[in-house]
Amino acid sequence: MTTTSRVAMLRELRPPAERPFVLEEVAIPPLTEGAVLGRMVLAGVCGTDVHILHGKVPIKLPAILGHENVCQVVEIGGSKPLADITGQPVQVGDLITWLPKSCMQCYSCTILKDQSKCERRIGYGGWLPAWQHPYLVGGFAEYVWLLPGSDIVVVNDVAPEAVVLGDALRVMVHAVENVGGICYGDTVVVQGSGAVGMMGILLALDAGAGQVIVTGGPAARLDLVRELGADVAIDIFGVRAPERIAQVLELTHGRGADVIIEATGVPTAVAEGLEMVRINGRYVIAGHYGDAGTVPLNPHLINRKQVTITGAWSADNSHFLRGLTLLRKLSRETLDKLVRPRFSLTDINAALLATERQETVKVVVAP
Amino acid sequence: MTTTSRVAMLRELRPPAERPFVLEEVAIPPLTEGAVLGRMVLAGVCGTDVHILHGKVPIKLPAILGHENVCQVVEIGGSKPLADITGQPVQVGDLITWLPKSCMQCYSCTILKDQSKCERRIGYGGWLPAWQHPYLVGGFAEYVWLLPGSDIVVVNDVAPEAVVLGDALRVMVHAVENVGGICYGDTVVVQGSGAVGMMGILLALDAGAGQVIVTGGPAARLDLVRELGADVAIDIFGVRAPERIAQVLELTHGRGADVIIEATGVPTAVAEGLEMVRINGRYVIAGHYGDAGTVPLNPHLINRKQVTITGAWSADNSHFLRGLTLLRKLSRETLDKLVRPRFSLTDINAALLATERQETVKVVVAP
Amino acid sequence: MTTTSRVAMLRELRPPAERPFVLEEVAIPPLTEGAVLGRMVLAGVCGTDVHILHGKVPIKLPAILGHENVCQVVEIGGSKPLADITGQPVQVGDLITWLPKSCMQCYSCTILKDQSKCERRIGYGGWLPAWQHPYLVGGFAEYVWLLPGSDIVVVNDVAPEAVVLGDALRVMVHAVENVGGICYGDTVVVQGSGAVGMMGILLALDAGAGQVIVTGGPAARLDLVRELGADVAIDIFGVRAPERIAQVLELTHGRGADVIIEATGVPTAVAEGLEMVRINGRYVIAGHYGDAGTVPLNPHLINRKQVTITGAWSADNSHFLRGLTLLRKLSRETLDKLVRPRFSLTDINAALLATERQETVKVVVAP
Amino acid sequence: MTTTSRVAMLRELRPPAERPFVLEEVAIPPLTEGAVLGRMVLAGVCGTDVHILHGKVPIKLPAILGHENVCQVVEIGGSKPLADITGQPVQVGDLITWLPKSCMQCYSCTILKDQSKCERRIGYGGWLPAWQHPYLVGGFAEYVWLLPGSDIVVVNDVAPEAVVLGDALRVMVHAVENVGGICYGDTVVVQGSGAVGMMGILLALDAGAGQVIVTGGPAARLDLVRELGADVAIDIFGVRAPERIAQVLELTHGRGADVIIEATGVPTAVAEGLEMVRINGRYVIAGHYGDAGTVPLNPHLINRKQVTITGAWSADNSHFLRGLTLLRKLSRETLDKLVRPRFSLTDINAALLATERQETVKVVVAP
Repeated sequence: MTTTSRVAMLRELRPPAERPFVLEEVAIPPLTEGAVLGRMVLAGVCGTDVHILHGKVPIKLPAILGHENVCQVVEIGGSKPLADITGQPVQVGDLITWLPKSCMQCYSCTILKDQSKCERRIGYGGWLPAWQHPYLVGGFAEYVWLLPGSDIVVVNDVAPEAVVLGDALRVMVHAVENVGGICYGDTVVVQGSGAVGMMGILLALDAGAGQVIVTGGPAARLDLVRELGADVAIDIFGVRAPERIAQVLELTHGRGADVIIEATGVPTAVAEGLEMVRINGRYVIAGHYGDAGTVPLNPHLINRKQVTITGAWSADNSHFLRGLTLLRKLSRETLDKLVRPRFSLTDINAALLATERQETVKVVVAP
Repeated sequence: MTTTSRVAMLRELRPPAERPFVLEEVAIPPLTEGAVLGRMVLAGVCGTDVHILHGKVPIKLPAILGHENVCQVVEIGGSKPLADITGQPVQVGDLITWLPKSCMQCYSCTILKDQSKCERRIGYGGWLPAWQHPYLVGGFAEYVWLLPGSDIVVVNDVAPEAVVLGDALRVMVHAVENVGGICYGDTVVVQGSGAVGMMGILLALDAGAGQVIVTGGPAARLDLVRELGADVAIDIFGVRAPERIAQVLELTHGRGADVIIEATGVPTAVAEGLEMVRINGRYVIAGHYGDAGTVPLNPHLINRKQVTITGAWSADNSHFLRGLTLLRKLSRETLDKLVRPRFSLTDINAALLATERQETVKVVVAP
Repeated sequence: MTTTSRVAMLRELRPPAERPFVLEEVAIPPLTEGAVLGRMVLAGVCGTDVHILHGKVPIKLPAILGHENVCQVVEIGGSKPLADITGQPVQVGDLITWLPKSCMQCYSCTILKDQSKCERRIGYGGWLPAWQHPYLVGGFAEYVWLLPGSDIVVVNDVAPEAVVLGDALRVMVHAVENVGGICYGDTVVVQGSGAVGMMGILLALDAGAGQVIVTGGPAARLDLVRELGADVAIDIFGVRAPERIAQVLELTHGRGADVIIEATGVPTAVAEGLEMVRINGRYVIAGHYGDAGTVPLNPHLINRKQVTITGAWSADNSHFLRGLTLLRKLSRETLDKLVRPRFSLTDINAALLATERQETVKVVVAP
Repeated sequence: MTTTSRVAMLRELRPPAERPFVLEEVAIPPLTEGAVLGRMVLAGVCGTDVHILHGKVPIKLPAILGHENVCQVVEIGGSKPLADITGQPVQVGDLITWLPKSCMQCYSCTILKDQSKCERRIGYGGWLPAWQHPYLVGGFAEYVWLLPGSDIVVVNDVAPEAVVLGDALRVMVHAVENVGGICYGDTVVVQGSGAVGMMGILLALDAGAGQVIVTGGPAARLDLVRELGADVAIDIFGVRAPERIAQVLELTHGRGADVIIEATGVPTAVAEGLEMVRINGRYVIAGHYGDAGTVPLNPHLINRKQVTITGAWSADNSHFLRGLTLLRKLSRETLDKLVRPRFSLTDINAALLATERQETVKVVVAP
């Protein structure tokens, strides 16, 4: 039996180019009742990981990053049967992923009934400390040690490359739910073509949109967007905002889009989007996980057009489960376009660098 | 039978103090089938009338203003029975009011099913021209001539002083509907204590709010607000914005209000309100009928708190009908506080001046 | 210029086998301003047409049936430009369809804002009388004469075979809207595999359902259902109700379906469906256009499971427009499976007979 | 310090008239960390308690009933600060109530986010066993022993007589929420004038209903209903169902009520209510906690009127908190009418008998 795990330890924050991760060997603690030891199969690298390295998202060091994970169950602590969040049994050999754990006791969890706003959420891959038990708390490693009561999902029937996309997708499922769903035939504008925006595009296409328009870039990314089925992709580097707005209006008989999903993190995108949305249209802000400051907005515009604007913060377990519908549909060909390149754990610093450069949609690491 | 009507004609735009209205006699055209001649009983003066005089709301001259009206039916054109918008018969002697008429043919009326956003709405009291048939198109007059097909409501069972409040109230009924209704026990903040805000306060109190907090002014107005039942009234002239926000948070156990209704027309109120609203709270912008420019807002705040922001533009017939519930409940004592002073048509310029000075909630004119 | 039109006149109600339709020549009235003369391209035969022949849906005779229509514009009355319900110009040579016309004045149209419940709806193909101007009021004819103000949709970019499916589809779009939309990944049960159910299946598949289960028959129809993408099709002729319920529960981890769409017209289907739906699930009754009597239902079940049950009556223009998204996507191969056989007007009685026998999904008539 | 508590022990099921409860002395177990010992102030007797005695609601014996409780905190186990479900501190001397405890781990709690449908809910007053630790698990006793983690609400600012009404009220708050809220001015029919119906009436009146119509009985109860503000009360013992339906239609201009709240537990009430509700109206079944069998309903009626029918099962903590708004408003005069008579623990059997006879709205027991 294995007794140690190789991990990519992060002891100091510095940019990817300065190689912040160091490979270390960590002892695997014995399993307690209900704990799970998993051998990592695939870990996605998230834009948030890059933000962490730049000090924009606060975490405590040392840390093991990696929160978009698939592992294979090696051992389960104790003898009681273990179930995933849907009630399905978890067994040795299963491929699983796991989600942030809401406390189910705070005001958000109990009175607001919104677990995505849990006041004491536990997150693997940076938010749980790597300097105390159970140490193996992130996906950039050979093994993970999941706490008893972790929110596990068995994903034997989903390609690991698809599962790592589920982290971005669940935010989009949440966003679409918060914005009142896509009413069949809606014209949807997705602002942004990063991993989150890309999942929004695929989701809108599969959830009944009549027309999907994307504003994003760069050009190569937009080619991919079109290949994946978007009706129109507008290059923000080649087309200025007033012209982008004009194009959306033209594509909607001058009326504007029914739904706009913001996945950019850029405040000015919101002002732009409010010009693109129709009377009584809906707008969801999902890309502002970080605080990027204010943008001048006109209350008269919201009042007159009766736009509904809302936000979507992270996601809860139900959103991940709903997203499985899309993850199961992604073809090998599509996954090859979206999930690449694949780095070994040894090359973790290169993986982060590739993510920082936004060369592809989802960089992954396999031990 | 009367053949002419005295009217307060507006031939040139100038401020109330410069006495823009001139009393004239206008011939009453013969009634066509379905038209209604009414003798004015009471006309409310709206803040919009003042904005018109200042050139901020475009209309064509000459005009007869007055769109918050109660009249008594003097004659009905033709012999066919006439019904109001609820199907109730309209008869000579009835007290009636009438609402803006939506075209029921445009995209908003037919496909969006939102008559308040009608693209070709007909409004009495400034929007219908006074230089062509039927001339008598506003409430600041002795008689009105209602076009066949007008959206009439019989209000025999409502005090005329209450009916004139219905114009502001219906906007608030619409706002509350658009913001998802007041969930029983909600803490509601009403920003603004003008006629519209005042109706929002009374509506929230009667629609199941658990706590109603008002930010407005001046002090005398806030005394009235408290007399009418608001739990807390915060004086915007005496308390600065950060402190107002702090007070609302303190009144809500640090969580923020469930619902905020904006009725100020001041862009900075929106930024302030977003700090007052709770996670997953709701915010409706109803005071920005005019374009008062932009305000810096933070998309991160909307994203993180998952606030739902929307607008309410004017109202449709259903909102006026729902508002009757409140109008019927207003006691004589309350009406005396809200609807005063009463001017004769001869003193129309003074009525507008009193409205401009915001001395009372609703100034009225009786011929 | 043509001066007469051949029509399939219905002068007496009798079953299809007794050949109720007689071919007649009717004079084409001159066009008035805004009226449209169209040469029929394709008319779908609806199950309702069969019900009419059996006296189950009351109409006045003589009548020209056919309310699922595509025609080509031959002439437009007057000189004013004509627009369809989206604002797009209607011109000679265009392929168009038209929808039931709501009055836009009744309580349902104005206060309830629900045009599908219009109290005075005008329907072509049986509801407008064929014995008075403009006579040519149904699709089982060579020409149609559309009244000024008709709700026309230009469908140049849609296959005529798809357009005739739009009548059944719009009811399903309405049903899905009334039931709160399909939340992405929902398991949807469609009860019924007739034309309406078939459109419900295709709609659910395209609107983001994670799993679509069908209960219907006969076997050949279910083969088609599976070919079109349904995950599971249960034969009501081969599998008894308790077993059907058990299968749905098994397919949903014992929890029941998220959404059930009833398109059977059989009251017992509702009792069955309530056993198939999950806690807090949604159920829409869309197949009970006719009154087929009562069924014993258990209020405790509704109370305990908190099921939301609702209905969808016909549809309004917005639903047809939304349905175009699906109609445009239907491949030639799919249309060939769904829309057949094609009869000439001469064989109208055979077309009705084929419809009565439910041999195919949508029988059509072309002049 | 007290070491024993007098309790009304239920060791055998038999009707109230046969005096099923026996007073016993039970030792008070020492408090563990976070447990609370309370001296009972007031316990409401619920109709469910009577159903339990008749064997219609299964529980295990011996049991201590009483689930509508107010007690005063005597002692808190351990030294950690204790908070109620809103975060407010719980201290010795506080008046508190407590709610059923949802597990927050099952599918309903986590994925459906509906704690009222918790699969493993813990209820005091009959559902927790009285033969094992901590024994003192019901309100018909001198003391209660609340388990650590119990869902406590501090109610120092609410009259104890009001608090015991909160159990029935929270179901109505839930029902109103599930039925889409009361839209301002709605006509609401409450079917039933028992404790739950009575709370529904008061809630509708305070939540913005324009007209509240009650169908119930007997006559004395309806007099009370009218005193409390209902617009119309129809006696089901004196007026037959068709006439009741006719009255509701007449009171709504022939259109039917906007909202119907069922609080009868009688299946035929649902058929009756479906005739009373308007097109697009809403109907919530809240009185069928027990299974009283089926009733013939017509799917065509639901389809044609597009009624939305739903259920409300128990309630969650948020509903109780919202209900506090009403509980705080109840005047002493109203409480004296609703909450009476008061029995001592010694007379517990008489209290159950009075409840069985439905002589008053809420019988209470004080030690």
